Amino acid sequence: MKILNKILFDTFLYFLFLTSSFSTTIHSQNLSPEKLKSYEELASKMVRTVLVDQKGYGWLKELCKIGPRLSGSEKSMKAIKWAENKMKECGFDSVWLQPVMVPHWVRGNAAQASISSSKKYKNEKLKILAFGGSVATPKKGITGEVIEVKSLDEAKKLGDKAKGKIVFYDRPLDQGTLNTFQAYGEAVDQRMNGAIEAAKVGAVAVLVRSIQTNYDNVPHTGVMLYDKSVPEIPSAAIGFIDADFLSKAVKLDPHLKVTIKLDCKTLPDAQSYNVIGQITGSEKPNDVIVVGGHWDSWDQGCGAHDDGAPSLQTMESLDLLNRMHLKPKRTIRCVLFINEENGLRGGIEYGKYSANGKDTYLAAIESDRGAFTPRGFSVTTDSLSLLKMQNWLPILNKTYIDWIRKGGSGGDVAEIKNAKALLGYVPDDQRYMDLHHSANDVLEVVSPREMELGTSSIALMSYLLSEEGL
Amino acid sequence: MKILNKILFDTFLYFLFLTSSFSTTIHSQNLSPEKLKSYEELASKMVRTVLVDQKGYGWLKELCKIGPRLSGSEKSMKAIKWAENKMKECGFDSVWLQPVMVPHWVRGNAAQASISSSKKYKNEKLKILAFGGSVATPKKGITGEVIEVKSLDEAKKLGDKAKGKIVFYDRPLDQGTLNTFQAYGEAVDQRMNGAIEAAKVGAVAVLVRSIQTNYDNVPHTGVMLYDKSVPEIPSAAIGFIDADFLSKAVKLDPHLKVTIKLDCKTLPDAQSYNVIGQITGSEKPNDVIVVGGHWDSWDQGCGAHDDGAPSLQTMESLDLLNRMHLKPKRTIRCVLFINEENGLRGGIEYGKYSANGKDTYLAAIESDRGAFTPRGFSVTTDSLSLLKMQNWLPILNKTYIDWIRKGGSGGDVAEIKNAKALLGYVPDDQRYMDLHHSANDVLEVVSPREMELGTSSIALMSYLLSEEGL
Repeated sequence: MKILNKILFDTFLYFLFLTSSFSTTIHSQNLSPEKLKSYEELASKMVRTVLVDQKGYGWLKELCKIGPRLSGSEKSMKAIKWAENKMKECGFDSVWLQPVMVPHWVRGNAAQASISSSKKYKNEKLKILAFGGSVATPKKGITGEVIEVKSLDEAKKLGDKAKGKIVFYDRPLDQGTLNTFQAYGEAVDQRMNGAIEAAKVGAVAVLVRSIQTNYDNVPHTGVMLYDKSVPEIPSAAIGFIDADFLSKAVKLDPHLKVTIKLDCKTLPDAQSYNVIGQITGSEKPNDVIVVGGHWDSWDQGCGAHDDGAPSLQTMESLDLLNRMHLKPKRTIRCVLFINEENGLRGGIEYGKYSANGKDTYLAAIESDRGAFTPRGFSVTTDSLSLLKMQNWLPILNKTYIDWIRKGGSGGDVAEIKNAKALLGYVPDDQRYMDLHHSANDVLEVVSPREMELGTSSIALMSYLLSEEGL
Repeated sequence: MKILNKILFDTFLYFLFLTSSFSTTIHSQNLSPEKLKSYEELASKMVRTVLVDQKGYGWLKELCKIGPRLSGSEKSMKAIKWAENKMKECGFDSVWLQPVMVPHWVRGNAAQASISSSKKYKNEKLKILAFGGSVATPKKGITGEVIEVKSLDEAKKLGDKAKGKIVFYDRPLDQGTLNTFQAYGEAVDQRMNGAIEAAKVGAVAVLVRSIQTNYDNVPHTGVMLYDKSVPEIPSAAIGFIDADFLSKAVKLDPHLKVTIKLDCKTLPDAQSYNVIGQITGSEKPNDVIVVGGHWDSWDQGCGAHDDGAPSLQTMESLDLLNRMHLKPKRTIRCVLFINEENGLRGGIEYGKYSANGKDTYLAAIESDRGAFTPRGFSVTTDSLSLLKMQNWLPILNKTYIDWIRKGGSGGDVAEIKNAKALLGYVPDDQRYMDLHHSANDVLEVVSPREMELGTSSIALMSYLLSEEGL
């Protein structure tokens, strides 16, 4: 039986090898228990520091005093200067402005709409807000019958019926969708392409039911598109409550007429800048991790959640490393991208710079989903890098990060085409579309603790990337 | 070699057996892929239904119109009647009131404090709010020098120095603690036992810095204790901003005197009720899953997050099963417990009932941590039951539940001593202590979507428990 025992033993060893080599593959990704513990302690210290100091929230108060930061505006330039100074005050190793030419659209003063002809509803005012990029109406306004549709397809099919009329896109954001970004994405074609399709069938203007999750009459703006092959017609959001009213009114009085007045215009492109600051890596200065958000906003409210506070999270994440005397091995660079809202010019410009420079990009993290409580990171990378990051979850969980999943990152950082990993910081999304692109997006709707926790999540992730690599 | 091959094969089979028996242990807990898929679809349908209907949020609007629901108050009785009617309207299989005698404390009208003697600060008013259970001051108020301490220990050590004085407990909630419930728990001893320890060293009244996470001057109340062996002295919260002021003032003028006036009192115990409604199990009617929150609140704001909306989540979770024509195998019973805030009498009464009745209790789920976005369930049970529930995570995740962990449940359901599992529904906690027990806890701070998602989490968990058992 000796030989049998030997075979048995060998087979056992073979299985042992299989098992152990498998677990080696897994464990090579893992940190030692000591290292894990020390990172966990660091994470808790980061959380404590941001929650007690609330430094980024203090910055948000200052930023909101400047006001909204529409690309090309005077206030956006003030905010750029403010950020540059703040980064210098924080003692970042390098701070610079990267020139970017941006579109310069101005809203003007008039945004009026009312029912100008109807037996029942005459002179009833409607709350509207031009979409970014819209042309003006003539001074006396545009008057037309209103024709309600639920989709671009319905608009296309109107044919001659639309001639001389105002097309009213009335499909609300689908409240039943769990993820509000998904719901927004499914409704936003009306705003983006509504004017093009309406113009193709001869309409003279467009109204779109405000894309939002809450129930109020504060219209949400956002970018819209024109197509040079068809006339450019004015396009505006109509408040949610007034959209309810208008929808009912046109059913009862199909020939009612609405008059719209807008005096927005597009000026020549303006000089603007990305604001960039970094902590230079102590061991691998040309190996870069980017963290950033977009520094422009719409001209409503103060762009507190979109994207003031999230941008400040990325800026504070560097300052937090400084405050905690951490010297990252790799360079961690904060980029405040200009013009995400209506052009992505800042992201594209930085993308070109990243492609042609001497730096290699390990990762880029975007924060552009509001400054609510942390939930996770959405990552575009290879499977092994993803697995490696997922092994850091016990550490990141100390900052309320519950998961790391494959998924999209963000419009600006996605322009850094050669980065090994692109990450989107994902906070809770349930309240975002209540305020996004609207006058509701003000300081008061940002929770200091929620914002600061996000700062700790981003600081920790960028630091782990710097120290552990991918 | 034949025999060798046989041995090799047997050994292989042995390993296969080891592996498969191991995975059987795991898989016996698991659902079949088909069942998993059908539950996942059900979960998504639940989410869509609550988010579109927002029925529970509609109820919250009605409840907030009634006002706050302090135990023994007229409004609490109105709310009890309202809930009973609503459950009947919903067509629950049984609805009943369970009699409970509750403490009946009334705040009265006066809650005044001012600096009555000081060179610099005379007549400066201080914003205060009596703690629940506090005795009144004499009509002319209580006047005394203020002595600031940071802890009960410091108060104990004051000795004769405290005689005739007002002890001012001034240790704020620790903002650096990640979990706000933990931070609250670490600060609340000042409110609970502050008057007892101060009375022991001869103090005449107590002020406690409002226990909260935000920065404002709206004091938060809550229950306090007396000890019959020492005098009962008045005790009140002082607004956070005024606490800052008072702390500075007593440093600059150690002999300044404050006058406090309170006219609260405790009346004889009042008749009240738990409100109970159920969907009777189609197969195991005496096997019960309780879902519930507490129906009383403090008398500030309208108790929207504490515990109006969370209680309504549990009530709506039953209605949701009805709306979706789901007939649970086991009985799912909603219990709205009265008097959690200052007595736990409703929980204790139901606990007695559960111990002596014919029902067995599979599980009880409490919702009393606000109606913010879902995060997880905290569960007290055996390891196998916990593992079984954790296997449902892919389903529960459709309602934004990220984790199920061992942990505490809630004060009321913990009285159901013979339940196999006690669960606490855990939403995000970062904003809760901004408003808890204060005038900030109103309808406007509840997000309809966040509240409704919680309803779907609770409905789904109770339904899975009913159908799959533990």
